[in-house]
Amino acid sequence: MKMLPEAIKWNGVSIEILDQRKLPDLVKYINCTSVEILANAIETLAVRGAPAIGIAAAWGVALASKQGISIESAIERLRVTRPTAVNLFWALDRMAQASDYELEARRIQFEDYENNRKIGAYGEKFLPKESVVITHCNAGALATGGWGTALGIIRSAREAGKDVKIFACETRPLFQGARLTAWELEQDGFDVTLICDNMAAYLMRRRKIDAVITGADRIAVNGDTANKIGTYSLAVNADAHGIPFIVAAPRSTFDLSIPDGSAIPIEERCEDEIRVLPGGQTVPPEIKVWNPAFDVTPFELISAIITEDGEYEPN
Amino acid sequence: MKMLPEAIKWNGVSIEILDQRKLPDLVKYINCTSVEILANAIETLAVRGAPAIGIAAAWGVALASKQGISIESAIERLRVTRPTAVNLFWALDRMAQASDYELEARRIQFEDYENNRKIGAYGEKFLPKESVVITHCNAGALATGGWGTALGIIRSAREAGKDVKIFACETRPLFQGARLTAWELEQDGFDVTLICDNMAAYLMRRRKIDAVITGADRIAVNGDTANKIGTYSLAVNADAHGIPFIVAAPRSTFDLSIPDGSAIPIEERCEDEIRVLPGGQTVPPEIKVWNPAFDVTPFELISAIITEDGEYEPN
Repeated sequence: MKMLPEAIKWNGVSIEILDQRKLPDLVKYINCTSVEILANAIETLAVRGAPAIGIAAAWGVALASKQGISIESAIERLRVTRPTAVNLFWALDRMAQASDYELEARRIQFEDYENNRKIGAYGEKFLPKESVVITHCNAGALATGGWGTALGIIRSAREAGKDVKIFACETRPLFQGARLTAWELEQDGFDVTLICDNMAAYLMRRRKIDAVITGADRIAVNGDTANKIGTYSLAVNADAHGIPFIVAAPRSTFDLSIPDGSAIPIEERCEDEIRVLPGGQTVPPEIKVWNPAFDVTPFELISAIITEDGEYEPN
Repeated sequence: MKMLPEAIKWNGVSIEILDQRKLPDLVKYINCTSVEILANAIETLAVRGAPAIGIAAAWGVALASKQGISIESAIERLRVTRPTAVNLFWALDRMAQASDYELEARRIQFEDYENNRKIGAYGEKFLPKESVVITHCNAGALATGGWGTALGIIRSAREAGKDVKIFACETRPLFQGARLTAWELEQDGFDVTLICDNMAAYLMRRRKIDAVITGADRIAVNGDTANKIGTYSLAVNADAHGIPFIVAAPRSTFDLSIPDGSAIPIEERCEDEIRVLPGGQTVPPEIKVWNPAFDVTPFELISAIITEDGEYEPN
């Protein structure tokens, strides 16, 4: 088994962010010596994944404190980096209340890891001894304080002696499944097969799939769940094929201020994410593009939401 | 409105094949002066789309005849270029029976255009005066003798005075939707928006979609339909959202020798189609890849199959 690099490291004076845009070709860190550099790393997806965004932002506040910069302005800047993942706002709110910023950031990072282990322990019970799982985007160690949410369940299942095979959806437009999940799982010695997003349904028809497991970026009170675009399509297909659809996320992903998914703001990102094709071809500017970064899966399609407290039955 | 280049042109001594791999950046023809060059153009997807493959192969036989080469060996070579689209075998069988090869190839090409106009006329009746349609891959003029099957319905609807907006799924892994359909429709003055395949379900939930229309590569007797990978996922989602799912294809797409879709051979293509990402990144060879080029949609999910003879109700 190879070493998986950590997504976020505090070195005492600055924040080292693994540049996930360069994976799997290059393992390279961005040295965030200012809140602005960090905010930029979040905005440009050098660090991504709802829990990891929260952790990175927490360290941003600790960095501001270390540098004697206004905590309020640091929080204000970090708050506008990404709109959908609620863990960002949760972490910033927690930092705003802190007295020892470095300790609080460290705590947020450690607790996320600890929560992932609990999510894994609760979630792995859903998997049979020999399992085939489909996952989407990256809800792994790279997206969290370590271990992972969706991939944490898979890791915990292996620890419990189960044999888990994984199909990773590549996750257009930014290929987090191809670049991050397939790589993270392969580094960790798992049997992983990469597919295009549009192949998942056909895979479900051709072969027994035991579960679809994804992370979440924001969960409304009724269980409606915002996650990476393509999650909803997988959930509809899982339902049509009688496959359990499981969401794995820390409690900090719940937004208790919104009753259902209709109130979740969905980030629309740059058109070039879709226009630029492999081989250097591009889709001409005359052609319109729609690029929502997330979608909302209604609670009816979710079999279980697994948090560090155990299983929530949606609604 | 701009001119749309023809996919296949016979110039009296050779076959000019529009190199669709280079679209939309470059409009460039491959001059097929031998059956082998043509066979290669079919295998490498310079020409693609079930009806266009049949037409190109027919011209290959005419070329062999012109060059005084064995018709049998030309047919044998062309028969092994692609396994799924049945129009290829249908056209070659027809050419094998012909006495005047050039006339027969010309007839196959012309009849395909004529059939598309009929498909368009029958199919456009399914669309309301103001329509929003989702399509997948390219079943347009570029995939046929002109006009198109799925896109032919859209063209005929416009001729009938209807206003049709189209969402084109980009169609991983080879982006025929992004490179061909979006471009073909934009050149032809349509209001087209490009989306990633995994966004279609969320689009269906967010906005009224009047129909999903696709082409077909092979249709079994009961109506089970093989088409570009991703079609099945769209059909499941269309069903879940109460949206009509329409297949448009000439009768030559039916394979009367197979009772249902389980007997349709599904081509699996080169892993590099999935491994090579935009920006030059690649998925490491240790990670497995599954790359079926087609999937099979069961007849229960198909609202109507439109051919030149009108509407077939599946089964």
